[in-house]
Amino acid sequence: LVPRLRPFTTTIFAEMSALAVATGAVNLGQGFPDTDGPAGMLEAARDAIAGGVNQYPPGPGMPVLREAVARARLRDRGQRFDPDTEVLVTVGATEAITAAVLALVEAGDEVVMLEPYYDSYPAAVAMAGARHVSVPLRPDATGRWSLDPDRLAAAITPATRLLLLNSPHNPTGTVLTREELSAIAELAVRHDLVVVTDEVYEYLTYDDAVHVPIGSLPGMAGRTLTVSSAGKTFNATGWKIGWVCGPAELVAAVRAAKQFLTFVGGAPFQPAVAHALEHEMGWVDGLRKDLQDKRDRLCEGLAAAGFGVQRPQGTYFVPTDIRPLTPPGTEADGLRFCLELPGRAGVVAVPQQVFHDDPAAGRPYVRWAFCKRDEVIDEAVRRLAG
Amino acid sequence: LVPRLRPFTTTIFAEMSALAVATGAVNLGQGFPDTDGPAGMLEAARDAIAGGVNQYPPGPGMPVLREAVARARLRDRGQRFDPDTEVLVTVGATEAITAAVLALVEAGDEVVMLEPYYDSYPAAVAMAGARHVSVPLRPDATGRWSLDPDRLAAAITPATRLLLLNSPHNPTGTVLTREELSAIAELAVRHDLVVVTDEVYEYLTYDDAVHVPIGSLPGMAGRTLTVSSAGKTFNATGWKIGWVCGPAELVAAVRAAKQFLTFVGGAPFQPAVAHALEHEMGWVDGLRKDLQDKRDRLCEGLAAAGFGVQRPQGTYFVPTDIRPLTPPGTEADGLRFCLELPGRAGVVAVPQQVFHDDPAAGRPYVRWAFCKRDEVIDEAVRRLAG
Ligand SMILES: CSCCC(=O)C(=O)O
Ligand SMILES: CSCCC(=O)C(=O)O
Repeated sequence: LVPRLRPFTTTIFAEMSALAVATGAVNLGQGFPDTDGPAGMLEAARDAIAGGVNQYPPGPGMPVLREAVARARLRDRGQRFDPDTEVLVTVGATEAITAAVLALVEAGDEVVMLEPYYDSYPAAVAMAGARHVSVPLRPDATGRWSLDPDRLAAAITPATRLLLLNSPHNPTGTVLTREELSAIAELAVRHDLVVVTDEVYEYLTYDDAVHVPIGSLPGMAGRTLTVSSAGKTFNATGWKIGWVCGPAELVAAVRAAKQFLTFVGGAPFQPAVAHALEHEMGWVDGLRKDLQDKRDRLCEGLAAAGFGVQRPQGTYFVPTDIRPLTPPGTEADGLRFCLELPGRAGVVAVPQQVFHDDPAAGRPYVRWAFCKRDEVIDEAVRRLAG
Repeated sequence: LVPRLRPFTTTIFAEMSALAVATGAVNLGQGFPDTDGPAGMLEAARDAIAGGVNQYPPGPGMPVLREAVARARLRDRGQRFDPDTEVLVTVGATEAITAAVLALVEAGDEVVMLEPYYDSYPAAVAMAGARHVSVPLRPDATGRWSLDPDRLAAAITPATRLLLLNSPHNPTGTVLTREELSAIAELAVRHDLVVVTDEVYEYLTYDDAVHVPIGSLPGMAGRTLTVSSAGKTFNATGWKIGWVCGPAELVAAVRAAKQFLTFVGGAPFQPAVAHALEHEMGWVDGLRKDLQDKRDRLCEGLAAAGFGVQRPQGTYFVPTDIRPLTPPGTEADGLRFCLELPGRAGVVAVPQQVFHDDPAAGRPYVRWAFCKRDEVIDEAVRRLAG
């Protein structure tokens, strides 16, 4: 393995899921749902297989899906994209992000990202031979992980090539506010930066949190690549259908890299996801409501078990502070906690310190996924209380 | 788009297929079959979707598929791989190859490859910031594109990090002989090089051509990554299920890169391909026989239309020499020929010069795919004769 990838030999998600399988623990680590997506979408995929949609789709994705994506962005976000040049279907959001980084960044460049970050972001930057620079989200008095725009401004240098955002934010559950996003947008415009924004949880926001696509803010449409995921929106994480929308020139750059990562992907899933975008948004609204209830169910259980719960505004995840459970005089260590938890309580969670450059800042925090059946959440809570 | 990727903005396959769609021409360009794979495999995929195999599979691939791959390699090739550590499921062969290059090669390194080459190879090397070095296959007196091992020996320098092979070879249809492969293996051992071998057409060889996996030759098992594709073996190019087999350390390196390209892929296709590897090899033998007939059908038609036909020993493709059809005093130019052909005759083919560093060496050659229904081949031949 080349030196630039040596820090990235495995992912915390693969490791913790393997640990869950090995120990029989309840897996609240990796963020995947344990129930299926809309029946009509599954039926459409099965029909596509039976109907011979099994060979290479066009490189940018099947027209039926690109058109459905463009209609959905206009309908749900008021954003207008040309399906022929401004929409690219990818093998999930991971490929979209890595292809964007490989296409736009080179050795010596810097990529600014929010910390904690999703683990593939720094790995993609390392693959490009570039350097990532982190801007902290930190818990405020209410427990919401919030952005200090001055920290972002301070992180931008002449070497900064792009900002890699994520909202709703994994692992903290923060939904960036219009104010936070406007401050980011202003900096992007001032420094003429491209923004890649991972919005895979765009439909999964709770209470009165509103997802604002940064690409819709003034001055941003021409410089923003927005990444979405059918996996998260329609409970089909194993299909790996994602897409990126943005100005034609940037989308073409992503396509140039993407075509040599996988060429294409998931032919029969593409018409099925198109169907879902057109006909299953009611199902998604139900999912959102269910997930909000599940969030509350898990938050309540974690609070009862003694964790410091930081109620998320979106995503699949609750971040918690384990210090209330840490014996006085011992340092809270989320990684040790998570490695011991399967043996001690039969539950798997994810230590947040692996999403930080300086593990110290993340050490007291542990992330729990609530995209699980109620009985699974209840069982985990029972085990944690025991 | 970063400078290192500027030569790679599109692929000839995407371009020629788009041209076929736009002009209504018969598409003998891109290599994808126009009939489906085994019914049992399609049924298994549909059952997997209905049965809830729709979330992230494990990072290395589902155990059922890794075990089926290991059994197939032993049964069909006499090669023994541990399904847990020596087999990795990928999003097609393209991802396997690009991940291998990104994992094993860095700026300043050289990758030696056969020329003509599949177009993703130099792009992957460029992504890694490395340099590719080409070793020519050239037509011998019989029209077979053959390797001169001395040219390979001469291409290896202290900066050579890996050899990227491909047999059965696209676009020439050459199946490297045991002698050619032994010469390559000897050089790999002598210079302690890793070999990545793209064997996606391993089951598609004709007449008395025998596919020899270079990883089975003396000294090679510990240094060879062998890449295979369900897309080509089971007529499911749009599913993008591939795999790479090799020693644990090399496979782990590929996995490190692969997990940040796509994480995983095609969950419900994985048990379906496992089923096919166990139960549908009779179907594959039928495919091989059909393709041999189709090869002959197309070769005959191309010869009758005046092309210099170079009968392939394997793959989906016939290379032809267009000089017999080029007016005296004009230089043969496959690219111009292929750009004009849809308008002139309603057929799409692929110019081989795009697979060469020096286009001159490939300019007289045009590649035709025969993985098409007989009536499609016949219609193309009729149009070319007219
Ligand atoms: C791609 S694996 C992890 C899934 C996920 O998004 C998460 O758990 O954070
Ligand atoms: C991945 S697109 C091209 C398919 C193919 O292998 C070819 O036509 O050479």
